[in-house]
Formats: sequence, C-alpha cells, structure tokens
Amino acid sequence: MAVFKKQILLETKEGKVSYVDITLEVKQAIEESDIKSGICTVISPHTTCSVFFEEFAHDINEAGDESLQEDLNTVLEKIIPDHTSSETYVYPGEEHYKAVESWPNAQEYLPDGDRKALWNGDAHLKSTILGSSETFEVENGKLAVGSTGYIYFVDFDQTRERTRKCNILIIGE
Amino acid sequence: MAVFKKQILLETKEGKVSYVDITLEVKQAIEESDIKSGICTVISPHTTCSVFFEEFAHDINEAGDESLQEDLNTVLEKIIPDHTSSETYVYPGEEHYKAVESWPNAQEYLPDGDRKALWNGDAHLKSTILGSSETFEVENGKLAVGSTGYIYFVDFDQTRERTRKCNILIIGE
Amino acid sequence: MAVFKKQILLETKEGKVSYVDITLEVKQAIEESDIKSGICTVISPHTTCSVFFEEFAHDINEAGDESLQEDLNTVLEKIIPDHTSSETYVYPGEEHYKAVESWPNAQEYLPDGDRKALWNGDAHLKSTILGSSETFEVENGKLAVGSTGYIYFVDFDQTRERTRKCNILIIGE
Repeated sequence: MAVFKKQILLETKEGKVSYVDITLEVKQAIEESDIKSGICTVISPHTTCSVFFEEFAHDINEAGDESLQEDLNTVLEKIIPDHTSSETYVYPGEEHYKAVESWPNAQEYLPDGDRKALWNGDAHLKSTILGSSETFEVENGKLAVGSTGYIYFVDFDQTRERTRKCNILIIGE
Repeated sequence: MAVFKKQILLETKEGKVSYVDITLEVKQAIEESDIKSGICTVISPHTTCSVFFEEFAHDINEAGDESLQEDLNTVLEKIIPDHTSSETYVYPGEEHYKAVESWPNAQEYLPDGDRKALWNGDAHLKSTILGSSETFEVENGKLAVGSTGYIYFVDFDQTRERTRKCNILIIGE
Repeated sequence: MAVFKKQILLETKEGKVSYVDITLEVKQAIEESDIKSGICTVISPHTTCSVFFEEFAHDINEAGDESLQEDLNTVLEKIIPDHTSSETYVYPGEEHYKAVESWPNAQEYLPDGDRKALWNGDAHLKSTILGSSETFEVENGKLAVGSTGYIYFVDFDQTRERTRKCNILIIGE
C-alpha cells in the first residue's frame, strides 16, 4: 500500500464561472503513482471551488464553456443568483469585511479597498452544494471511468482571476 | 493495510429515474474484504448516475419508488426539469450529436438514429449535484451506519434501460 | 500505511438547522493519528446530516448562525421548504409511521406518539444533496486547507435536539 500526491495549478478567470477539464492531469498522476488498484481523490482546498465528474460535451460557446457547463450555470442560478449587490446575500457582513481588512494580505482580497471584491457568496454556496472533492477508482493502473467520463475543476468565484490549487491523492497498491 | 474491490451490475429502467437499494451488496463486499477498519467508497463510473446515503422509507408508490425518492424527484425537478425538448437545455448541441453519430458504437447511444435518445441533460446535471461517489466507514468489519441508514445507486437517465456498473472500494486493515 | 479513526459527539438543537464548526476536532484527530501524508474523510452516519467545507464568516445572527449558513438555509429552502405539514412531502407515509411505531425504541422517534415528530423530510433531502461525507488532504501531518477553510457538520433535522456522531477517518503514512 502506498500514498501518492500531486498538486496541479489552474488559472481561472474574472467575470465568469471557470471550468477546467483536468482529466488528463489526473490520468498522468495515476500513471506517475505506479499504483495499480485503489482510489484517487481529487480535492479543492478552496471554499469557492468544486471538483465533479461529467461527460465532455462537444459544443463550446463564445465564453469557452461546454454546453453542460452553460446548463449547470443556468440551473444553479435559479436558486443561487449572482452576487451583484450587498442585498443578494447576508454574507459578507460588517464583521467579515472588517476581519478581511485587518488581514496582513488584505490587499489580495480587497484590491484598492473595494468591498465589492468580497461579493462571492454565490460561489461559496454553489461549491458547498457540489462539494470540495470527488473520489474515483484506480483499476489496473488507470482511471476507471468510461470513455465519456471527464473530471472538471470549477472555480465559481467570479470576482477576480486567480491561480488555484487542486490536489490529487492516490491510495492503493 | 489492504485494498479490496467489488463491482456490481444494476438493471435500470426507461422512462423513469431508477433508484436501486445496494446496502446489502455493500455489506457483503465489506464482509468478503475481511477488512475490519477503514473506509468504503461506492463509485458510479457513469456521468448520469449517483450514489447517496438515505433512510429506507417504507411507503412505495405504483412506480416502485420509496416516498423519499418521489420527494427527491420533485425537489430536483424544480430547478432541473425533465429533458423533453431540444429547447430544455443547451446540451446536446450539433457538435455533440455529430460526435456521437461518428462513434463506432453509435447505435448503442442513438437507436434508429433518433437524436432524442441523447436528451438526458437533466440526468447529467442531477448527478453533478449529488456527486458520483459516497464514502462510508468500515468499523469492526461492518458498514458503520445506523439501523435506518441505506445506500442507494440512482440512474437519473430516463432515455433507455441499461445495465449499470457500481464499484465498491474498501481500504483499511 | 495506517488507518486512524476518531469519533466525536455533537449536540444539535430543536427548531433550527444546527451548524457545528468541527475544524479544530479534525485537526486534533490528524495530530493524534501521527499520519503525515494521506486523506482524511469526515463522515456523518446519520441520514439527515452532512459534512461540508466552507469559509468561516464572521457575522453571527441571533440564532447563532454565520452569514453563509443563513444564506445556505435560504437557497436550499427555495426548493426544499420546511416540513411543516403532512402535505409538504410524500414522506413519511402510513407504512413508515407504522414501521417506526413498531420499533422497540419508538418512543425515541415519536415522543408522546406525536407523528409530527417524523416531519423531517426536508432534512433527508437536504443531506442527500450535500452528501454525507467530505474528504480532505493530510499534508506534512496537517489538514491541507487554506487559512480561510473550515469544516462544518450540519444537522438539518429540526424535530428535536440530539447528540450526533461524526466519524473522522484518516488513512496514509
């Protein structure tokens, strides 16, 4: 039995939900691990991102999103609208603004002190519903999914572009 | 430490969401594994199916669904309506239809070339929200859930009957 | 490779969704495990509870809920209203009432024989959508999340106060 870990870095955008197909990276990590049988858990350490399993849909719109991603945005927005005003959500409240403003790296979260930069309540709620990790099978040294199965990392936070981390943990023998 | 894997096959139906109680199969896999302490991850390798943990509700309707399954269908349909026309979802678009039509096994996905056979966008979105796996505890060689806890596999895809795979992975000592 | 298990007990309330920050307990379990690299899966064995990863929001209302918890309640209630009458959900039906009434510990589930005590269909559905477990990374003997990442246990069942179990499983080396 062994444990193998690989971290990948992903660039995500401002002004849209960012979906990243990470299937190839997960398959490569499994190959590098030399683990033949076990589980592979793909984890977001960020509270506004998720990992999920979905088909690759071949139609891509002008924003760069696959059709199933457009549809997922639409259905989630029915209950979790974009965070476009201080009235959309209770979060963030005065105490949260003050706390972030007191952090040594406040500038990173609040560029130019603009409190709107924290209007990502929608992203927090969407990632809670989808979850921060997903677990797959490793079989015969390969990712055990069908030919139509892909793994996506999603950054629901639209407030600014970022470099996100995604951790791939493989356990088995 | 050891890893144990068992695959089960499940028959699902056309024209309805298919729920399958797999609690007994998971308990049997744990027994066969001879693992006393660890985790048991139950995984769907299909992008229109999920695994979840729920109470067994004793009332079963004419369609064969338990009351909590009827209720789950109702609440999910509020944001994810049945895929009944080409307008319901962006998916599948022209490129996706063409891609599937080019596959060697196209007939399996598009019986008689009927493009309506790909109208399962609802199933893709529901399974993204519920997730493709769930992880349980193995304690003293048993599934560590209360007496009211059951494990269900759900095939949200209503387009045709299928034989689905479900993978049970047990890791521990 | 080793497996380490710790169970924690959590007090939850009647008349509200109960959120419990269990980050510290998870971090302590990882320290006690002496496992340096691997995964940590946090599991609810109850069918009306979930585990999720979220930011700590500093504003707390009179009910004791953080702002993101208030917002999560609001968005989930849009599709899963509180179970306030026998019409809200199909569950529980006559067979389920009778089954519970026949259990040796029926008094625990139905204090004074009041069938309203089983009106927790909302809690079952919410926990199915959020899931019963979440998996995190253990890196260098620590929980691998950013400084804003916290782990919450939520009991969606509002029918009575309870002592809930939460199981922390750590696997690695």
